[in-house]
Amino acid sequence: MSKAESKSKFLAVFPKIVNELQSILKSYNMSQEAIDWFTNNLNYNTPGGKLNRGLSVVDTYVILKNYTSINDLSTEEYEKVAILGWCIELLQAYFLVADDMMDSSITRRGQPCWYRVENVNQIAINDSFMLEASIYVLLKNHFRNDPYYVDLIELFHDITFKTELGQLLDLITAPEDNVNLSNFSLDKHSFIVIYKTAYYSFYLPVALAMYMANVSNEIDLKQAHDILIPLGEYFQIQDDFLDCFGKPEDIGKIGTDIQDNKCSWIINTALTLADKEQKQLLDNNYGQKDAAKEKICKDIFQNLKIDQIYHDYEEKIVNELKQKISKVDQSRGFKSEVLSVFLNKIYKRKK
Amino acid sequence: MSKAESKSKFLAVFPKIVNELQSILKSYNMSQEAIDWFTNNLNYNTPGGKLNRGLSVVDTYVILKNYTSINDLSTEEYEKVAILGWCIELLQAYFLVADDMMDSSITRRGQPCWYRVENVNQIAINDSFMLEASIYVLLKNHFRNDPYYVDLIELFHDITFKTELGQLLDLITAPEDNVNLSNFSLDKHSFIVIYKTAYYSFYLPVALAMYMANVSNEIDLKQAHDILIPLGEYFQIQDDFLDCFGKPEDIGKIGTDIQDNKCSWIINTALTLADKEQKQLLDNNYGQKDAAKEKICKDIFQNLKIDQIYHDYEEKIVNELKQKISKVDQSRGFKSEVLSVFLNKIYKRKK
Ligand SMILES: [Mg+2]
Ligand SMILES: [Mg+2]
Ligand SMILES: [Mg+2]
Ligand SMILES: [Mg+2]
Ligand SMILES: [Mg+2]
Ligand SMILES: [Mg+2]
Repeated sequence: MSKAESKSKFLAVFPKIVNELQSILKSYNMSQEAIDWFTNNLNYNTPGGKLNRGLSVVDTYVILKNYTSINDLSTEEYEKVAILGWCIELLQAYFLVADDMMDSSITRRGQPCWYRVENVNQIAINDSFMLEASIYVLLKNHFRNDPYYVDLIELFHDITFKTELGQLLDLITAPEDNVNLSNFSLDKHSFIVIYKTAYYSFYLPVALAMYMANVSNEIDLKQAHDILIPLGEYFQIQDDFLDCFGKPEDIGKIGTDIQDNKCSWIINTALTLADKEQKQLLDNNYGQKDAAKEKICKDIFQNLKIDQIYHDYEEKIVNELKQKISKVDQSRGFKSEVLSVFLNKIYKRKK
Repeated sequence: MSKAESKSKFLAVFPKIVNELQSILKSYNMSQEAIDWFTNNLNYNTPGGKLNRGLSVVDTYVILKNYTSINDLSTEEYEKVAILGWCIELLQAYFLVADDMMDSSITRRGQPCWYRVENVNQIAINDSFMLEASIYVLLKNHFRNDPYYVDLIELFHDITFKTELGQLLDLITAPEDNVNLSNFSLDKHSFIVIYKTAYYSFYLPVALAMYMANVSNEIDLKQAHDILIPLGEYFQIQDDFLDCFGKPEDIGKIGTDIQDNKCSWIINTALTLADKEQKQLLDNNYGQKDAAKEKICKDIFQNLKIDQIYHDYEEKIVNELKQKISKVDQSRGFKSEVLSVFLNKIYKRKK
């Protein structure tokens, strides 16, 4: 099954989820106006992205269950694993609606951020809450009788809390309106990236599939964790690298991290190498909406050969990850293929 | 034990909770700056209120367990039930931090709303998320081995979702900046009040205590629910009445519901009785920051004898509730005293 077919099969489950959630509001005799609002909230904020996280749950499950393709799953089994995938997408929607408000962002996925839609404004806060609450409604409806039900709930709680911790450190380290590079450090960057991104984007999809496939011994969860977390960190470092050094025609957008005062791997690495004069220049020019100042920062990054440092880092981390993956203990049914699939999607990607 | 003593005993548990939550962040090697931020968030937003909801969990538990006073509980048992009480206070903190942002409120509990504190601003959204997430950290740490652990989690999830539904209907029915009384109705008022307030303020404390006291047969939870929900609705109708008709020296504040465009029981009742001319006057004068316009609305409420309608309603609902309470089946260990304690606190209160 092609990537596009997998995606459209996954997307076809979402309207059923919306229906299921609507029916609860109807059973409470909620006004049609409010049901429509909630429906818009779900449809506007959940399915418009790349859906990589949700699709990864399905793909991982297929590997763990030794199926040859998604088509081997019964309709019932497919929908059940897809619902877990949609729960991650709802979690992400919850975070993104709020993140866009906190960052005063303008657009998301090619449309205005939800809080900027007419009549929404600050109601978006409560809407984000409802996206999160929907996760637990779905888990209860579909997994209540499974022995791993509590594990799923605890996993979502734990990773939600971790993501919020990463978000918190990011918000207080790099507020867009108050540039202070002395707050930055590679340690903080690592914490932010791991907690804000790696846990829910890399570990969560695999762990969910492992529970449902009944390949969820603590040792195996730890094997997955210990590879997926550094892999997620690598992914974000690569993302930071592409934002600054990628070609717009490859990455499909123009990088904005420098002007946005992002606490990225690039600036943090540069700060460890810069001399006094370069530091002063970065202090004066980073994080400002000004193309000339951005150029000054970029030139310093070039002079410090950050691209070379990145390529060395990439070779090193990829070798380490390959090593670790090759040593995965598959004796309880866990499969290293789950991990190599992730790595292959990321290594040397251009966008 | 006096009310003040119960409250200070309950308050004494909170620093331990803060400590426990901090220790998780420390175990993740989070920066001290972020730990301090989270600590401030917890301390600023959680313990400053009347704590009625949290204290009700303890009081209900004492009654259900046939203790004569809080002093009969061992330290361990007291702390455990107090933690459940603090979980409701955290839930309320989560809602209030967000509600104040959505309502553009200025102060809360005699201090600036959290989002108005220096450097906080929109970070308050993520802070509210963390208040909610803390609930599930505490439940896991303290109740994971109890047979009712899943019941507690599901109860919090269910009531969180219901509260968000009530908040949603409130937000879209009565936006402060767009007065449109034709959106209002007594039905919507009832839904908003029950979902936004009654569930988490009245049913939740009792249901939590019932689980921990092992008096949680479905029939008994339903008995509690079927009395506490109308009782919570009565409480809010009374609150709306006092805001408009209470004397400031009794209620300790000056009512603002008319100027704030609140979808209150008063305006909704008035709308069912007003003639065309009165409706027009209400349309023109309700929901505006103008004392003269407020006075015009108040005069209409007087002319329509809303106070008499309220007093008739109060006598009727209190009699119905007393009747229901007297018929509670106590055969499985549930106690009607749990419910009459609530009713007695509310009936004829002046503030
Ligand atoms: Mg953002
Ligand atoms: Mg952000
Ligand atoms: Mg980026
Ligand atoms: Mg408010
Ligand atoms: Mg409000
Ligand atoms: Mg009030």
